Amino acid sequence: MSTTFLVALDLMGTFVFAISGATVGVRHRLDLFGVLVLSFAAATCGGIVRDALIGATPPASLEDWRYLLISSLAGLLVFYRHASVERLRNPVQMFDAAGLGLFAVTGASKALAFGAGPLTAILLGMLSGIGGGIARDVLVAQIPAVLTRELYAIAALAGAAVLVLGRMLFDGPLAPLAAGGALLCFSLRLAAIRLGWGLPIARPPED
Amino acid sequence: MSTTFLVALDLMGTFVFAISGATVGVRHRLDLFGVLVLSFAAATCGGIVRDALIGATPPASLEDWRYLLISSLAGLLVFYRHASVERLRNPVQMFDAAGLGLFAVTGASKALAFGAGPLTAILLGMLSGIGGGIARDVLVAQIPAVLTRELYAIAALAGAAVLVLGRMLFDGPLAPLAAGGALLCFSLRLAAIRLGWGLPIARPPED
Amino acid sequence: MSTTFLVALDLMGTFVFAISGATVGVRHRLDLFGVLVLSFAAATCGGIVRDALIGATPPASLEDWRYLLISSLAGLLVFYRHASVERLRNPVQMFDAAGLGLFAVTGASKALAFGAGPLTAILLGMLSGIGGGIARDVLVAQIPAVLTRELYAIAALAGAAVLVLGRMLFDGPLAPLAAGGALLCFSLRLAAIRLGWGLPIARPPED
Repeated sequence: MSTTFLVALDLMGTFVFAISGATVGVRHRLDLFGVLVLSFAAATCGGIVRDALIGATPPASLEDWRYLLISSLAGLLVFYRHASVERLRNPVQMFDAAGLGLFAVTGASKALAFGAGPLTAILLGMLSGIGGGIARDVLVAQIPAVLTRELYAIAALAGAAVLVLGRMLFDGPLAPLAAGGALLCFSLRLAAIRLGWGLPIARPPED
Repeated sequence: MSTTFLVALDLMGTFVFAISGATVGVRHRLDLFGVLVLSFAAATCGGIVRDALIGATPPASLEDWRYLLISSLAGLLVFYRHASVERLRNPVQMFDAAGLGLFAVTGASKALAFGAGPLTAILLGMLSGIGGGIARDVLVAQIPAVLTRELYAIAALAGAAVLVLGRMLFDGPLAPLAAGGALLCFSLRLAAIRLGWGLPIARPPED
Repeated sequence: MSTTFLVALDLMGTFVFAISGATVGVRHRLDLFGVLVLSFAAATCGGIVRDALIGATPPASLEDWRYLLISSLAGLLVFYRHASVERLRNPVQMFDAAGLGLFAVTGASKALAFGAGPLTAILLGMLSGIGGGIARDVLVAQIPAVLTRELYAIAALAGAAVLVLGRMLFDGPLAPLAAGGALLCFSLRLAAIRLGWGLPIARPPED
């Protein structure tokens, strides 16, 4: 049952991340297939790298056709209804924050299940959350937004840490810890957007 | 025997993809070693990522010295005879289309051999075909040509699908299916170049 | 004991590579967390990819908290004391050359320990040395310096080759071979910087 629960969270995250990938693809004037590739990459690359690094081969998001189907539907939606999706910028940011939280906790949980230690599980939870966005931006030759955006990676780190520490230190049950970690990540990220929270920016010498 | 056949196809694909990598390296004024790295990356990165994702470690193109030898020869040829190779642009496009078909079917076949399911095998066949070109372009900080170029990734997908579906649904023999898949990919790609076939391009709102 | 020796070399390399990653991050005005991510990526991505390609999962630099701690300390140092670190440009280049040599020999040695053949071990030793710098530059959308910089990758290749050939052909002891390989790489790189040694640069036709 807890597996079903995690897979459902994962598929929801897949949809919202694919939306963000397709949006970037459309802005860079890729062709339809390029947009679908970017949807799939944004939705799955974090999890694929995580799976390669814990030895869970072949990766779940290649074996299970639902990831490809859902990311392609999101890509087609953005490709043919781009103006409508852009108008929904605020909802999209909210979905993206939700996807970040979902991937952080499902990624950390899968790493633990494959025998990773707590530090690896936290880092791979964060990577599951931010890796797709990094791949998306690298593929259009941009500096990944996650490296400069308000509390993005840190929110994923916090969500993954809640799940991993709750499991390791208190042997807590999976579902509430996953929900709590995802919610913490989601809230941190939304608060950062609304309130303009951010980390200090590097000031190179020429300033 | 069918292994020898697949390896021979793979080495031919290695040569033509290394030519494309070296050509991009020369255009970006890399030094000799940088050109050789780009040759090797364009020729092998697709297969290396595929091998990492199916657990076939260490990857064949690192273990077998012929991949390095052939890609280096192609790189030296382009580095010292760049003008002649550029004059052969049409032949190079034809070789590239052939390499795409060869890698798509050998990649899909190897994924099947390591126990991947049909969807994974098709996707990894495509990735074997397009991954090297993606790595090549990311390494020179460009948007990968495969995301915008006429029917490139789709041709690889079709070639891989012929092999995988033929093997899974009809239990067909390897050599004719590989030849058929590679030929389909090659023909689709050449037709797309000659006839200017392409997919619709995304139109961002400011148009 | 030889494991302790290799880990010590590896942690020293981690620190100097993290300095280079953080410096690039500061120059691109990332936020604090982005700078720490770039520190960690520059210090560990070469080794992480090597570990994925030899099946050593999960990668050592995720499991062992010292890599994260050391790279974060280097990142904080550069973030808050950037002017001082920039003034040390020459020492940083020297440390970077040392890190290159250290990672090349520890990477090759680990690949051998996981059953890789000699060619794979040499190539993965080189990749351990240069992979972090490639990841660092790709993440800020630049052509990797290693593809154009004086004798960078070749120095790493030479250092890894000393260790691998010494182990395979003469069954030599690990510590002196590692020291010799690292020293060769370090000296080649420093000599190349001081004397302006470089490989020929590609001349595209329009010259």
